[in-house]
Amino acid sequence: MGGQQPEDPAGRRDPGAHRVLRAARPEGTRVRVGAVEVGGPGFVVMAGPCAVEGAEQLELAARAVAQAGAHLLRGGVFKPRTSPYAFQGMGEPGLKLLVDAGRRHGLPIISEVMETEQLPLMAEHSDILQVGARNMQNFGLLRALGRLRKPVLLKRGLSATVQEWLNAAEYILAGGNEQVLLCERGIRTFETSMRNTLDLAAVAWAKERTHLPVIVDPSHATGIPSLITPMSLAAAACGADGLLIEVHPRPEQALCDGQQAMSPGDFATLMQRLPGVLAAVDRHLWTPAVPAQIAGAR
Amino acid sequence: MGGQQPEDPAGRRDPGAHRVLRAARPEGTRVRVGAVEVGGPGFVVMAGPCAVEGAEQLELAARAVAQAGAHLLRGGVFKPRTSPYAFQGMGEPGLKLLVDAGRRHGLPIISEVMETEQLPLMAEHSDILQVGARNMQNFGLLRALGRLRKPVLLKRGLSATVQEWLNAAEYILAGGNEQVLLCERGIRTFETSMRNTLDLAAVAWAKERTHLPVIVDPSHATGIPSLITPMSLAAAACGADGLLIEVHPRPEQALCDGQQAMSPGDFATLMQRLPGVLAAVDRHLWTPAVPAQIAGAR
Amino acid sequence: MGGQQPEDPAGRRDPGAHRVLRAARPEGTRVRVGAVEVGGPGFVVMAGPCAVEGAEQLELAARAVAQAGAHLLRGGVFKPRTSPYAFQGMGEPGLKLLVDAGRRHGLPIISEVMETEQLPLMAEHSDILQVGARNMQNFGLLRALGRLRKPVLLKRGLSATVQEWLNAAEYILAGGNEQVLLCERGIRTFETSMRNTLDLAAVAWAKERTHLPVIVDPSHATGIPSLITPMSLAAAACGADGLLIEVHPRPEQALCDGQQAMSPGDFATLMQRLPGVLAAVDRHLWTPAVPAQIAGAR
Amino acid sequence: MGGQQPEDPAGRRDPGAHRVLRAARPEGTRVRVGAVEVGGPGFVVMAGPCAVEGAEQLELAARAVAQAGAHLLRGGVFKPRTSPYAFQGMGEPGLKLLVDAGRRHGLPIISEVMETEQLPLMAEHSDILQVGARNMQNFGLLRALGRLRKPVLLKRGLSATVQEWLNAAEYILAGGNEQVLLCERGIRTFETSMRNTLDLAAVAWAKERTHLPVIVDPSHATGIPSLITPMSLAAAACGADGLLIEVHPRPEQALCDGQQAMSPGDFATLMQRLPGVLAAVDRHLWTPAVPAQIAGAR
Repeated sequence: MGGQQPEDPAGRRDPGAHRVLRAARPEGTRVRVGAVEVGGPGFVVMAGPCAVEGAEQLELAARAVAQAGAHLLRGGVFKPRTSPYAFQGMGEPGLKLLVDAGRRHGLPIISEVMETEQLPLMAEHSDILQVGARNMQNFGLLRALGRLRKPVLLKRGLSATVQEWLNAAEYILAGGNEQVLLCERGIRTFETSMRNTLDLAAVAWAKERTHLPVIVDPSHATGIPSLITPMSLAAAACGADGLLIEVHPRPEQALCDGQQAMSPGDFATLMQRLPGVLAAVDRHLWTPAVPAQIAGAR
Repeated sequence: MGGQQPEDPAGRRDPGAHRVLRAARPEGTRVRVGAVEVGGPGFVVMAGPCAVEGAEQLELAARAVAQAGAHLLRGGVFKPRTSPYAFQGMGEPGLKLLVDAGRRHGLPIISEVMETEQLPLMAEHSDILQVGARNMQNFGLLRALGRLRKPVLLKRGLSATVQEWLNAAEYILAGGNEQVLLCERGIRTFETSMRNTLDLAAVAWAKERTHLPVIVDPSHATGIPSLITPMSLAAAACGADGLLIEVHPRPEQALCDGQQAMSPGDFATLMQRLPGVLAAVDRHLWTPAVPAQIAGAR
Repeated sequence: MGGQQPEDPAGRRDPGAHRVLRAARPEGTRVRVGAVEVGGPGFVVMAGPCAVEGAEQLELAARAVAQAGAHLLRGGVFKPRTSPYAFQGMGEPGLKLLVDAGRRHGLPIISEVMETEQLPLMAEHSDILQVGARNMQNFGLLRALGRLRKPVLLKRGLSATVQEWLNAAEYILAGGNEQVLLCERGIRTFETSMRNTLDLAAVAWAKERTHLPVIVDPSHATGIPSLITPMSLAAAACGADGLLIEVHPRPEQALCDGQQAMSPGDFATLMQRLPGVLAAVDRHLWTPAVPAQIAGAR
Repeated sequence: MGGQQPEDPAGRRDPGAHRVLRAARPEGTRVRVGAVEVGGPGFVVMAGPCAVEGAEQLELAARAVAQAGAHLLRGGVFKPRTSPYAFQGMGEPGLKLLVDAGRRHGLPIISEVMETEQLPLMAEHSDILQVGARNMQNFGLLRALGRLRKPVLLKRGLSATVQEWLNAAEYILAGGNEQVLLCERGIRTFETSMRNTLDLAAVAWAKERTHLPVIVDPSHATGIPSLITPMSLAAAACGADGLLIEVHPRPEQALCDGQQAMSPGDFATLMQRLPGVLAAVDRHLWTPAVPAQIAGAR
């Protein structure tokens, strides 16, 4: 075959990830989700319970995060669980609850999709399709998402390098879907004090390398409620474009990862503390009252 | 809700992984693949190219591994690749080549399945369905495999604990498919001299904890051809039930992971060296001439 | 021996680390270094070259960091190097240069001590004695430092848990020296894009657990100059008490770790950006003009 | 300065580690310890308690390992402990017990040295000076060991790459002391089922790269007694030159790491199982009855 580069029987060569690179869109990608824009100067907060558990729990959570100023409502209805016997999510009935709660409180919704088979349902109802860390290299799922024209939030794998994370996003972009948000949620290291090790330098590094917005999930990253506020402020300070936070009306009763959920009160306090840090880095909480063109000219 | 245990709305509780535990089948599971038995005293070697590239390459590889004494022919036709532009495998035409080569040389075949959609095709033609490290927690795929009655080889995830690996196997067993082989293929650590860090202590530990057979893949684990022989001998010495090895007729020309493939000559030498180590731990290379009952009585 | 607890022949039992715990001094420890106070509301910046290389280099660096508002001058004269043939530091002549430069610019100095034998010299001349990551569990050195009454900056080991880091500090406190600063400088993980993985959650976690001040070294943590500013701002946002930053007048000519040093211009810009973030978390750059008592009463 | 290579003020350049490389002594280094030779075809087993606790404990341990066929007696008298309040070893009185026990049973001894100050005492009495994992980059200690003419066993650091380990050995060789044994004792990874992750591929890799003998410590590596036998057999199979094993007459009463010590009975069984595996790789347990020249010609 002669050349040094691997070549496949069809003669294609691997050009490497290129659609995701900053050079492909130096001004950065802005992703529209309903009225909300992610990736511009406005900082976007997505909050809600890890799992939708029922109508009352979700209503309490949705009301709390909406009142505190969150921009999207999160809630899992299909849950990837280490054990086959753990609560696997409410499925379609949970999705309906989530859609209704979002509508009642004027919040677009984000929910996880685990399998290609769930795409038709989820793509119809969820405003952002979340891909979990364990599926970051589920290439069939990534390809299927590339065929949609819907925003996707792609979590970094537990042990994925930044380059592998960008390559996974390239799978989606290569299919023509350019509405991709990256999400850092902590990597797996030797340190066991916390659930994972939040890699904020990877956020700053990714922001240099790619034009895609980068979101931070401090809840999964630390697993410790008292660390969510400092890590959220740090994420805002280092250039992240938003947060994905678990809030539960009664964290101690959560069916899933309750020990890491914020209470509504703590979340409201965090929302009051974010603007100061954001202002120091020429950002602000996203708001329809500050049009992007004006904010960008500051 | 009263109790301390998480409970889902339907009232189920998580009993934890139990079907995989050694206590559930103290004598150990033996998995039949054609005439070959994995998990008994016979040590089973699966070998072949990382990817099926064409008829000639596969025939040369199959002939070489058969002559050297391998028991199964491996070959990927659907390849999970970090980059969407890298060679993704030959797909169904490659599978046909693999089936034919196996038949010609009297070897059952093992090939990777990446998506639920590939299951009908793969389950019909491949004797063992391999689940790659990146799919170890692709729970939809695991559940679908649990509905089959076919042997599955489940690779350990890059950063999966032994417990998470057993839990992933539990997903398959919970569906009623008990023919599961575990495969250690190296974990991701700080050490970059080698591709991954082969965790042989996890093999010995898994053998204590579960009744499922444990296979070792020294090719992906090290990525260095000269280390495959010592690591194969070490795997045999510490209680593994078999090996999964990449052999390519011309490693330097391989389309996928060529730098880690063994040459046919080195593989033949390894096959000659295994019996000595196996004898020292009361095992032997699997052979139909030593019926399992007799070998078990040694 | 009866009991379940390990007990040594002399009858002592291990009470665990307790002097370092927050409960032992809930108000937090403040460490005085010359006129500077670390651990109060004032945020302290230590900056200078990785290694003292000569009079001119050091003077340029010292002038630059002093003008930009740094509070201490850092500079290594004994350098731990992976290779025995790499530049090992200027030793005592370098220390004299550092002392003189600090005096000229009104900055206390911090320099690394590698061995007990260097303690008399270093304790006489350096205002803070730095213990490097590779020496975090050099228990003989820690004990010797415990016998001094000088501030010590204890870097976290490359693969030390937060608990092990606190235990190492306990060795110093147990000797009666309570002037200990902790310093997070990145941990070793699988991620190789950056030199190490900066673990800011460990900073917030340590601040909860211990009364000792916590400093962040973004230079060693990332090894990438463009990441130092965002990581410094993030450190300020999440509760760190100060920074330890490498600044070199000509980074590209540095004898040691030059690729990660900031230029004087970038450092000056960082110093202008810190106050905004600090104000958002009720902190400020340390300054003698804001007496600690008043600041503490805010 | 013009050139691209870092250069220090004295004009030396870093040639990189070279004395440790296989090319510097292709036939391999053989280290004499009393009558025992390490690094030739004979496989050497060093065994004994983690810590010397008293005369009776040590006598029982020494007798047991001598009767089972061990070649050296190990025992710590200066113990590096995470906590300053844990049992720190018996010190000089313990060393005397160890020397006497070794003499009574005809075994050379190996014991850990933690600080340069301990060198005169330890170098006089211990046949091998052990450097623990936490001191692998205690460069002052390494340089001091380089000035001795005594065998040194250098453990790999918890998160040291193979290259860094070789560089640490180079510090000793650079001082003129060529009697260095490397010891793999497990690295720190995300996996918490075991104390550390035994990296046997690093053993095979190190054997390729360096002429120094490589020993394996399965006790610290796994922390689980039932895994010591399989990991010892695996070490023998993959080319290690010997083992360092913790044996305690009453593991459950050990003052230090008792949970990982082998019982005398299990150790004796292991010693009976090693010869079979060693024979399969053309090695044998070291014995004065098989002169090295003859064995080398096999």
